[in-house]
Amino acid sequence: MRIQKILTLDAAPAETITLNGWIRTRRDSKTFSFVELNDGSGITGIQVIVDQSTPGYDQVATATTGASATITGKVVESPGKGQRWEIHATEFQLVGTCPSDYPLQKKGHSPEFLRSISHLRPRTNLFGAAFRLRSKISYAVNRFFNERDFVQVHTPIITASDCEGAGELFRVTTLEGDIDKQPASEDFFGKKTYLTVSGQLEAETFACALGKVYTFGPTFRAENSNTTRHAAEFWMIEPEMAFTDLKGDMDLAEEFVQAMVRAALDECGDDLAFFNRFVEKGLIERLEKVASTPFERLSYEEAVNLLINSGRKFDYPVHFGANLQAEHERFLTEELLKRPVTVYNYPKEIKPFYMRLNDDNRTVTAMDLLVPGIGELIGGSQREERLDQLIANLKHHNLSPDEYSWYTDLRKYGSVPHAGFGLGFERLLMFLSGIQNIRDVIPFARTPGNAGF
Amino acid sequence: MRIQKILTLDAAPAETITLNGWIRTRRDSKTFSFVELNDGSGITGIQVIVDQSTPGYDQVATATTGASATITGKVVESPGKGQRWEIHATEFQLVGTCPSDYPLQKKGHSPEFLRSISHLRPRTNLFGAAFRLRSKISYAVNRFFNERDFVQVHTPIITASDCEGAGELFRVTTLEGDIDKQPASEDFFGKKTYLTVSGQLEAETFACALGKVYTFGPTFRAENSNTTRHAAEFWMIEPEMAFTDLKGDMDLAEEFVQAMVRAALDECGDDLAFFNRFVEKGLIERLEKVASTPFERLSYEEAVNLLINSGRKFDYPVHFGANLQAEHERFLTEELLKRPVTVYNYPKEIKPFYMRLNDDNRTVTAMDLLVPGIGELIGGSQREERLDQLIANLKHHNLSPDEYSWYTDLRKYGSVPHAGFGLGFERLLMFLSGIQNIRDVIPFARTPGNAGF
Repeated sequence: MRIQKILTLDAAPAETITLNGWIRTRRDSKTFSFVELNDGSGITGIQVIVDQSTPGYDQVATATTGASATITGKVVESPGKGQRWEIHATEFQLVGTCPSDYPLQKKGHSPEFLRSISHLRPRTNLFGAAFRLRSKISYAVNRFFNERDFVQVHTPIITASDCEGAGELFRVTTLEGDIDKQPASEDFFGKKTYLTVSGQLEAETFACALGKVYTFGPTFRAENSNTTRHAAEFWMIEPEMAFTDLKGDMDLAEEFVQAMVRAALDECGDDLAFFNRFVEKGLIERLEKVASTPFERLSYEEAVNLLINSGRKFDYPVHFGANLQAEHERFLTEELLKRPVTVYNYPKEIKPFYMRLNDDNRTVTAMDLLVPGIGELIGGSQREERLDQLIANLKHHNLSPDEYSWYTDLRKYGSVPHAGFGLGFERLLMFLSGIQNIRDVIPFARTPGNAGF
Repeated sequence: MRIQKILTLDAAPAETITLNGWIRTRRDSKTFSFVELNDGSGITGIQVIVDQSTPGYDQVATATTGASATITGKVVESPGKGQRWEIHATEFQLVGTCPSDYPLQKKGHSPEFLRSISHLRPRTNLFGAAFRLRSKISYAVNRFFNERDFVQVHTPIITASDCEGAGELFRVTTLEGDIDKQPASEDFFGKKTYLTVSGQLEAETFACALGKVYTFGPTFRAENSNTTRHAAEFWMIEPEMAFTDLKGDMDLAEEFVQAMVRAALDECGDDLAFFNRFVEKGLIERLEKVASTPFERLSYEEAVNLLINSGRKFDYPVHFGANLQAEHERFLTEELLKRPVTVYNYPKEIKPFYMRLNDDNRTVTAMDLLVPGIGELIGGSQREERLDQLIANLKHHNLSPDEYSWYTDLRKYGSVPHAGFGLGFERLLMFLSGIQNIRDVIPFARTPGNAGF
């Protein structure tokens, strides 16, 4: 007997097949039962009719919501709307029962409650769809870079360096007792170590050897912020390209975003239709527009002038030198230009040490890609490839050139112009699904006070 | 002008193209220079002839080993052996110089020295090949599971649970001072947290919702062992399948190994040829054999009897109940059966709590896939799906059923037979490349006393 998946069911009418799955609902009449079975392969379940002559019919009465079953039966064209097939069971086998305290009874549940049962929530329609999307887009990320001959680099998770110089780090240790009084040389790695905040600097070393590389892995921030957009552990995508300038970097970023939107539309149809219906009305239309509209490009100075001249009153006033806030980014993308916008050449004072100084001596080759509904999705730059200037930048940011000697070596030995960007994978998933809370696109979210499971 | 990569150069003779890369060597005559350029796209560089009439010829004298250059020129069929094309430069542009203290001068270097310059070693032939292989196989892993409709799950890195109950954990904390005296509730996550040793338990929760899933991400062991096979941070691949028994698990494991060997042979030809010549003579023949030979399957009891009856004297005597040591595993695969061997049904005493107890009451549905040259490459099992038995196992292993209540819930609510395995990605890469030290297949290896870069 062929075992099939509901999503990819390709049986002929009257063919007998076997399905494995979990019972979503059951309705009984005197001589038969309707069972809706879902096997996790897609949003849609399949209706199974088990009548009193079917072997195993006596088990149906205990096949409650959440129970698992193996069902063999004939494939029949369904008279019902919205489904092509139904199954007339020739054998019903209850695999695992499900007691009535099962938390996922057929009714609405709050997101907060569902987070408290993160081990069961992928059995719901919403989270099944969210995590299938996560997987499909994860594969699309790797495919995108593989098709373009990028080498994937697994940069280290445990690190002694702090890419951003920002500070909000998790310490990693095998010491016990007072970890500050004991010499760091006693710790496992012989020095103080932390969880990485970015693989960029290590990726640069590989780009300066292999040409085009990317990272795709977990990164960490010990930031005590309880918002819908921050998690302590999240996945980042960081491409880095040798012999590439800011323009090449922006080209790649825009191509990447459109490719990911296209992948979601083409490969996650049913799940996206579900989000479009229950999470964000108009989602598919929004995504189609992003996939087909050229992005806008503005210098930071042009963006600031547009905002000032718009006459709009903002909570944070805009002027040259100010950080763009979410309200500015969303106004640009959602109201003024109605499309994704790449803003480049930011004032040097508000950007990190590794970005290349422009000839105007007041801006750096930074770029942020802003999208409607989210704001900043991507941040990148051309990197400072001139040794003298990079060392001056390090000192200006109170960082020790000695500690970064391996990084400055890239500028000493055969330096090349190079550029890259970083993208929070979860933010991309929120953009693609309309899901508003980052906790709901991560299998087991880690946030202040939460590391369950 | 088309910018091309050396590996995929598809120019027509006399076409003018541009290449970006780094100088490996240079030989000068009176009126022209031979420059060997490598761009990281493959093992092979390309020979460039720059003569005194070429614009930029005056820069060639400073184009020393390690310097970067952009070269435009005509593609010409090469009279030399082992290369199809050479370039007659029409423009030579030195991009970045390279001083004479560059550590990668053209001569042999010890692996230890090269590890100390992990930021530069991908510029060598060996490490360029190793990290291109790592990337290609990384993609092949994702492709293998994607083609079979597995959902990738990003299981958490920071965790409060300890899958193996084994203990060798890195603590993750934002506390300062005495981390044992302060209440764990003061820490970032409100409890003690560690770096994960395995995503298996979390993957099981997703398999019991979505059917077939896998993880592919970093895992950690705070084990103070300085061997060529242990690293504190390494990547693991862990598939998990609902409605699957031990046989289905072994089928997948064997299919996976053969697919990865096939991918290396088909997609990493030049790099494998390099390993075959300089790292392990006979590598390609060994891999071809693994790809084409059916694997052997033996129960643990059969394997033990084979070892006992072989008459071979081992350092560790063999008897039912003993752990198979590397010497036993290698003898089985390399001498006795001369092929990969899957051994199954191990004594319950030597295996973890989550494995399914067999009806004989003394073995569990464990399986190890052993390969020549490495020993154990994969370890897996059918999981205990019976709630009562799982709770008995937890107690037997001195683990608290309360702490694992989310895990036992999978057996309470619609339990299904399920199975999976774990595979250390670095061990696979060592198997595919012949490289003997795990530090040399990891971009920036983390081992006791080492967390540089």
